[in-house]
Amino acid sequence: MNYDIHKIRSYFPVLKQKVYNKPVIYFDNAASAQKPVQVLMQQERLHNDFYGNIHRASHYMADKATEEFEGVRDKVQQFIHAENREEIIFTKGTTESVNLVATSFGEQFLSPGSEIIVSEMEHHSNIVPWQIIALNKGAKVVKLPFSDSGELQTGLLPELINSKTKLIAVAHVSNVLGTINPVAQIIETAHQRDIPVFVDGAQAIQHIPVDVQALDADFYAFSAHKMYGPNGVGVLYGKKKWLEQMPPYQGGGEMISEVSFEKTTFSEIPFKFEAGTPNITGVIAFGAAIDLLQETGLENIAGWEQELLTYATRKLKEIPGMQIYGEAPHKSGVISFNIEGIHAFDLGTMIDKMGVALRTGHHCADPVMQRYNIQGTVRISFGMYNTIEEIDLFIKALNKVRLMFGQVAT
Amino acid sequence: MNYDIHKIRSYFPVLKQKVYNKPVIYFDNAASAQKPVQVLMQQERLHNDFYGNIHRASHYMADKATEEFEGVRDKVQQFIHAENREEIIFTKGTTESVNLVATSFGEQFLSPGSEIIVSEMEHHSNIVPWQIIALNKGAKVVKLPFSDSGELQTGLLPELINSKTKLIAVAHVSNVLGTINPVAQIIETAHQRDIPVFVDGAQAIQHIPVDVQALDADFYAFSAHKMYGPNGVGVLYGKKKWLEQMPPYQGGGEMISEVSFEKTTFSEIPFKFEAGTPNITGVIAFGAAIDLLQETGLENIAGWEQELLTYATRKLKEIPGMQIYGEAPHKSGVISFNIEGIHAFDLGTMIDKMGVALRTGHHCADPVMQRYNIQGTVRISFGMYNTIEEIDLFIKALNKVRLMFGQVAT
Repeated sequence: MNYDIHKIRSYFPVLKQKVYNKPVIYFDNAASAQKPVQVLMQQERLHNDFYGNIHRASHYMADKATEEFEGVRDKVQQFIHAENREEIIFTKGTTESVNLVATSFGEQFLSPGSEIIVSEMEHHSNIVPWQIIALNKGAKVVKLPFSDSGELQTGLLPELINSKTKLIAVAHVSNVLGTINPVAQIIETAHQRDIPVFVDGAQAIQHIPVDVQALDADFYAFSAHKMYGPNGVGVLYGKKKWLEQMPPYQGGGEMISEVSFEKTTFSEIPFKFEAGTPNITGVIAFGAAIDLLQETGLENIAGWEQELLTYATRKLKEIPGMQIYGEAPHKSGVISFNIEGIHAFDLGTMIDKMGVALRTGHHCADPVMQRYNIQGTVRISFGMYNTIEEIDLFIKALNKVRLMFGQVAT
Repeated sequence: MNYDIHKIRSYFPVLKQKVYNKPVIYFDNAASAQKPVQVLMQQERLHNDFYGNIHRASHYMADKATEEFEGVRDKVQQFIHAENREEIIFTKGTTESVNLVATSFGEQFLSPGSEIIVSEMEHHSNIVPWQIIALNKGAKVVKLPFSDSGELQTGLLPELINSKTKLIAVAHVSNVLGTINPVAQIIETAHQRDIPVFVDGAQAIQHIPVDVQALDADFYAFSAHKMYGPNGVGVLYGKKKWLEQMPPYQGGGEMISEVSFEKTTFSEIPFKFEAGTPNITGVIAFGAAIDLLQETGLENIAGWEQELLTYATRKLKEIPGMQIYGEAPHKSGVISFNIEGIHAFDLGTMIDKMGVALRTGHHCADPVMQRYNIQGTVRISFGMYNTIEEIDLFIKALNKVRLMFGQVAT
């Protein structure tokens, strides 16, 4: 494969760091990705050359910042193949994107007795906002369960869907199980009944090519910080027909047309949903992260990460007492597991001292833990810069931990 | 005064830029302030040395990021003299802080017929969120007017307040008029009737020392980007007794205790109000901006900016046909004006070409425009790095514009 891993790694200075005097192995990419020099350089350029508040000004620096900010909106539109640029709303992150839709769509379309179908493998951020709006509107959250192997039981959809169903919320990729869900198929089923689908793309967008028109998604949300971009920037894609019918989420500057104490009118999309000064530097720097993803090619990244996933899965399975959660045939580079006799938290603490950054716990997905009747898992998650060598070092470290727990070497 | 303006200016590389081949004069600080090297250096350090997602991880880089992130919470607490660190909520900006309180306080404490008193000189971001929640709850927004000179008619408060009044929302400093409102006195009046006060501090916090306990403010909101800090970071200070009674605003990770499809419970403050991955790099870099403000000293900055205000006001008043909006005795470094015979927008466009960055229009404060029966104003607003020389150059530029409009030189 034509994948220049050395060049890619050279963009990420942090990968040369040592922690506890060991070279860092960063396997916590599902939580947040590291940031390349290109992203910092964009911020520096903006800070030092022409920073200004956007949209409302008439001076040079503000105009230039506005142009670049709106240029990133175009870039995002192209990146996810949206039909219209005004379907791209900048938020502070996926969580806010979900809350925006839950609140605003819910305000408009939910009434007492309404139902929202939410998959059982969602991150809390794609469950709790629906629970909150359901509580406020007297609606109900209905669970779409998943199987032992970590696959959504989409066959149940026809019986879960009824005339009270107003929306289906589902992750494109599970942050715990790695499952790549058949969202196109779910959307097709839902659309046969005129039900819109909200897709949480936070764990997909940086790993696989996404085409919101091909998927026919009604909403698609993701965060820049998991895409090698800056913190505090998220995207909500929404079909124009929905966004236009939805009331504003937050009130403030930018999102109004005219304000008086008697009567206030609102802007058109996307501005209707972008109250206040946005994360100007963040959004502009986000553009550099998208450029990097596109230059590298999502297909190439997906291919590389599949190799890592396959290799790591094979290596992990050689370990006695290994339990992997999530073995769907279509998986992204996320592996959750437990080793019999070693608590996930202890494993995490010990392996950290060996330079491996991974995550242990419930991964903000309590229902997944409840499903398997476990407290938590160890999770490794890959990014575009990880390598087979790092997996080997990780497996070595894992075996050291096992030895400390009196388990025999493999 | 011991104010090393050269040292201060040296921290802001952008001030050495030229626009249209003229040295830039940045007088748009009320919209957003420029950022010092210290802020970028913090971001660079984080990106290159130890970036990780905070709170939920157990690895070195994430722990270090968490420590620094929470360190900034302590720093903000000390900066505004809050009693408790958990009274500091990080948001994406002042606008979100207002929306959080309007929605969450409103959900808990407003009912049909309730009244919220909002000052007439507010930025849209401190009007529209109250209008939205008022509409949802059947409540009413009541206007606290201001006088010709731009002073709130606080004498009217006793008759505006009644048993239906649930909250008063007021800016500490007006973004158009520059008025420093007597918030301590307003709060005292309100508290005599057990009514909480929300203070929009977006235009105050970077200009004058703020002590939320001395003010006895119930809520106090501001944005990092107007304080020489990064974009996409805001603060909501709220008294513990209120925050604890208020329901969550956004749902997601961080803000929950336990989640299931049957029952979800929430975290304690501040996390209850911080759903999702926060702006980690932004918040940590914000710490550097606070350090700069504290090292320089808010009293010193206030003194310096008062000199700029006094000098600029005197110089502007020498111009025939000059109308200044906002002449309260207590003013911050914001001057809004119009010159007879020259449209604000034309003036802004022409003066931009001379290197002066200022703002024209309604400044997101339509009711202020309505009050004076005008379409807009020209606004200049000072920051810690502006100088008397810049004011002289600005006045010269202004006179050039006047000449182009056939007005005689002063």
